[in-house]
Amino acid sequence: MNPIEPLDKLTSLLGRLPGVGRRSAERMALKLARDSRGLVRDLILALQDLDAKVCACSLCGGITLKTEDPCSLCRDARRDSRVICVVEDPGDILLIERTGYFRGRYHALMGKLSPMKGEGVQGMRVESLLKRIDGEGIEEVILALNSDVESDATSSFLQHALSTRKVKVSRLAFGIPAGSAIAYSDSVTLSRALQNRQPV
Amino acid sequence: MNPIEPLDKLTSLLGRLPGVGRRSAERMALKLARDSRGLVRDLILALQDLDAKVCACSLCGGITLKTEDPCSLCRDARRDSRVICVVEDPGDILLIERTGYFRGRYHALMGKLSPMKGEGVQGMRVESLLKRIDGEGIEEVILALNSDVESDATSSFLQHALSTRKVKVSRLAFGIPAGSAIAYSDSVTLSRALQNRQPV
Repeated sequence: MNPIEPLDKLTSLLGRLPGVGRRSAERMALKLARDSRGLVRDLILALQDLDAKVCACSLCGGITLKTEDPCSLCRDARRDSRVICVVEDPGDILLIERTGYFRGRYHALMGKLSPMKGEGVQGMRVESLLKRIDGEGIEEVILALNSDVESDATSSFLQHALSTRKVKVSRLAFGIPAGSAIAYSDSVTLSRALQNRQPV
Repeated sequence: MNPIEPLDKLTSLLGRLPGVGRRSAERMALKLARDSRGLVRDLILALQDLDAKVCACSLCGGITLKTEDPCSLCRDARRDSRVICVVEDPGDILLIERTGYFRGRYHALMGKLSPMKGEGVQGMRVESLLKRIDGEGIEEVILALNSDVESDATSSFLQHALSTRKVKVSRLAFGIPAGSAIAYSDSVTLSRALQNRQPV
């Protein structure tokens, strides 16, 4: 079978999306090539719309409309401007918002320290975080980073950078996830849950 | 957080791709919204290219370039035109081609019988299959359909439709997949493997 160049090109682009391997990308591209003219055209329009209308909030780095920058979360006067929640990715803001628990401001780092991938501080929005902490009268910083080696390193780095400032710094709690059984927890999770045990 | 309409729209379209659930679609859309202007534009171009250049082969239903219809497989004179391999989906042609084992023609049905989803024979390319069998001097039909209830029903239907014609009809063998252990096989697979046991 001759290679069909537009199909191969699309497959390799789809493979760059998160959680999409070579085989899934191929299935998606085939589905698009097969019978879904309508879907192809809708996707083109949606991507053009995204490109034209959506941008990163110039303040927190979250996702917002170009007509609404700073974003609605940064502009909302009812939110507590003394607490800032630092996340790696703008998508994490969405997830934390869904809990309805946090009512402060956000700051997306847009990455984490990853020497193995050659990703250092320069790619991250650390400078603007420090500027915001100094300029916006922030009293508490919550580091809502992931739980892996790179995120831990990023967290340590930020703790160090913030140590000279008069702010309370905390991290998300580590422990057994909700609805989970101890039997299914790995030993790192379990030892952290023991270490951070809470009085009842 | 205000809903960001272009993001929601893109998420719901991506969710219509095979193997993509709501959560994965959201991750993909966020990745596209986040930092990947280049990727968004490349995807738009690739989809436009696909839309402009790719079509279904008018003979076998496989995927081909609009400038190459019938497709290279249908035109290849070195292939055995007496054997036709019937698949559900054009993507399956690609997979069978990769084995390098089959050297005949193909015919994609573009679906299977699925009364539950209201999908009957009229949506499938059965008429053109029968026409090809009668007109192209085909001697053997290999039904390379999947192994589920709907595909089994489709297979039975085709066997019945072909029973009045002088062609050899076969189905793919069912059994233990390569590299797999009996311990991981479900009982239907195992009983089919027993039933179709082969003399050594």
